[in-house]
Amino acid sequence: MSLALPDGFDADLGRYMTGLGRAARDAAAILAHAEPQQKNAALGAIARALDARREFILDENRKDLAVAAGAQLAAALTERLELNPARIDAMIEGLEQVAALADPVGEISELRYRPSGIQVGKMRVPLGVIGIIYESRPNVTVDAAALCLKSGNASILRGGKEALHSNQAIYQCIRQGLHDAGMVEAAVQVIGTADREAVGLMLQMDDAIDVIIPRGGKSLIERIAGESRIPVIKHLDGVCHVYIDGDADPRKAVEIADNAKNRRYGVCNAMETLLVDAAIAATVLPEIIARMRAAGVELRGCERSRALDATLGKASEDDWYTEYLAPILALRIVDGLEAAIEHIDRYGSRHTDAIVSENYSRTREFLRRVDSSSVMVNASTGFADGFEYGLGAEIGISTDKLHARGPVGLEGLTSQKYVVFGDGHVRR
Amino acid sequence: MSLALPDGFDADLGRYMTGLGRAARDAAAILAHAEPQQKNAALGAIARALDARREFILDENRKDLAVAAGAQLAAALTERLELNPARIDAMIEGLEQVAALADPVGEISELRYRPSGIQVGKMRVPLGVIGIIYESRPNVTVDAAALCLKSGNASILRGGKEALHSNQAIYQCIRQGLHDAGMVEAAVQVIGTADREAVGLMLQMDDAIDVIIPRGGKSLIERIAGESRIPVIKHLDGVCHVYIDGDADPRKAVEIADNAKNRRYGVCNAMETLLVDAAIAATVLPEIIARMRAAGVELRGCERSRALDATLGKASEDDWYTEYLAPILALRIVDGLEAAIEHIDRYGSRHTDAIVSENYSRTREFLRRVDSSSVMVNASTGFADGFEYGLGAEIGISTDKLHARGPVGLEGLTSQKYVVFGDGHVRR
Repeated sequence: MSLALPDGFDADLGRYMTGLGRAARDAAAILAHAEPQQKNAALGAIARALDARREFILDENRKDLAVAAGAQLAAALTERLELNPARIDAMIEGLEQVAALADPVGEISELRYRPSGIQVGKMRVPLGVIGIIYESRPNVTVDAAALCLKSGNASILRGGKEALHSNQAIYQCIRQGLHDAGMVEAAVQVIGTADREAVGLMLQMDDAIDVIIPRGGKSLIERIAGESRIPVIKHLDGVCHVYIDGDADPRKAVEIADNAKNRRYGVCNAMETLLVDAAIAATVLPEIIARMRAAGVELRGCERSRALDATLGKASEDDWYTEYLAPILALRIVDGLEAAIEHIDRYGSRHTDAIVSENYSRTREFLRRVDSSSVMVNASTGFADGFEYGLGAEIGISTDKLHARGPVGLEGLTSQKYVVFGDGHVRR
Repeated sequence: MSLALPDGFDADLGRYMTGLGRAARDAAAILAHAEPQQKNAALGAIARALDARREFILDENRKDLAVAAGAQLAAALTERLELNPARIDAMIEGLEQVAALADPVGEISELRYRPSGIQVGKMRVPLGVIGIIYESRPNVTVDAAALCLKSGNASILRGGKEALHSNQAIYQCIRQGLHDAGMVEAAVQVIGTADREAVGLMLQMDDAIDVIIPRGGKSLIERIAGESRIPVIKHLDGVCHVYIDGDADPRKAVEIADNAKNRRYGVCNAMETLLVDAAIAATVLPEIIARMRAAGVELRGCERSRALDATLGKASEDDWYTEYLAPILALRIVDGLEAAIEHIDRYGSRHTDAIVSENYSRTREFLRRVDSSSVMVNASTGFADGFEYGLGAEIGISTDKLHARGPVGLEGLTSQKYVVFGDGHVRR
């Protein structure tokens, strides 16, 4: 390893990681009660440091790209790894957007008088130290650091090894910004070694880290969740469904199916399976199939849909479980709401599911019974997103039920403690 | 084991536990969308079944007490194990109180229009299956079952082995009540074996159980949290502090210190350490010491407090860490707010801490910086309680930060999913 490591690095990885943990814990105690303007000043200073060192960042990124080329990294991964002036602009804009968000820390809500005379409410507070583990996307380094900082949390970031030079270059800018703003520098720490052991150690540091957020593919996230001694906020996959009910408005059904699939293919909120009530299949499917074909989407249908249109491909049992993240759509004709809910319950991933229907009772039933992080009526699954929901930012989408569910923004990076105001009150 | 086990019991413990898990998962799917009146009817029917079978319950409890006597169980444990008519009355009243609470499930909040035209809100939903592990207190069987049922969750309960007969007797009444109300009987399941392996298996059933709530002593809870593959909502200990600031109203200081310690000794929200600013120590300590002595409280002071009153016992470093749950109080004179916060940060357990002060800036600082599940100003720590906070009920107090923090009532047993209402909206 020729790369310069952060101050205090020790050849012994265990000691290095312990040092990061201690520094993060100390930083968290300061950050937790930093004023909003201090945190925003730091975000601004980081943006300026990135802007001032664009050439350095691109040079370091080229080193990573050269290694990637040598290692014959897949084109999609290389595409995510590559930085350019526009991507640096986007990082800077991202920092400015996060700075402009309302500060979540210290907000007191539900403050009410109780019969005893005390006033009880909840105050929003940071979680402490957040560990983020992600793949080789250098922009995540800036995003994650900014959201943790704004929410008053110290962060320990671990990016993919292919982006090591890029991430360390960005980290230098982050440290510079923190320093310039007079903020404790260990507020953000980016792990400076490609050693895979570092992740294993990180997941055992339950004294130093309060929550782990993995970002990346399902296998990475499953491995982390299985290994971690620290609570994990995670999102496994998005096998999202649109169910077109027998009482759907055909116009809405076609537009929503088209948008849910064709807006973007590689995103977790894209529709992967379309369920259509048999009662309306003949009405809506021809146009939907035409739209999908026009967009170049491969269609894999159940037996009943293939009876309606013999040109459809054939769906296997596996297709119902699959998050394609690609221009492929599984298509199934079902007998009404009950069968649709059963399908979603069995094959879905509890991410986002939508019903298209004008029927009052069935939309209510779908909303109540579908156990997904977002459940929609007459809207495209593509809306499942922190910005669209008004969170202002998003660090990920949680398919867990505890703590944070659905798009996770600044609130999901905080907790609430009870605050009690009395005037000498004692409990009888 | 001569005790009758629930239907479907198999000599193989693993298969038995798997069976409980499957039945709970199926029951959860039904319970999640049970109507409020169905759940309340079941709670009422359980109350009637308990009332109808009082003699049977007391007979079974006597069997447990006989075993306990033979095993020379500690008096305090026997006291908790013992049932009598008044305790059965209390269980029945508890069921009626839970039935009277507002149903948390299905509540939609923060429903707002977004610039895109969609309406986004959050719907409160059950967690699914809750596993509760507790000591030999048969009343917890009824409490826990009632709160889980009301919040729409299936539950798997595992009480201490000393209460096995009592718990199974109560379980028969619960099943009777569920049956009479036409509710799925696996909504509540009480593990019917004293085999300790059952707990180990339970903690590995992450497919079947969504959250584990241990109730009992610190060592039990630490063991469960360390072993569990399932998220745990836990409360370790309550080393609660009252800090009397230099600008405290002496009257309030004396009353709050007295109440926080002497209201009850064996509860987690009792004050264990009193911190007093040196500036006010001579003013308030004599009366506080007199009150404590009058109540029979043993006092263990720091050097500085012993210089003020030579009759005080001597506190060791260990005392600052100790949750006495007894008429013992540690007492320390500190130099102002900063030293008090440092003490709480270092020795406290993040449960409940209070400041007594008339100083605006210092009360604000204490509220912001003390990282405990309840932080109070001019009120007794004794108020840290689900009923006092208006939660209507309490299944425990969480000292964790994720998901639920502080007293956990019905809300803490639920999650929120996003709901989106559109009118054919697609995302551009």
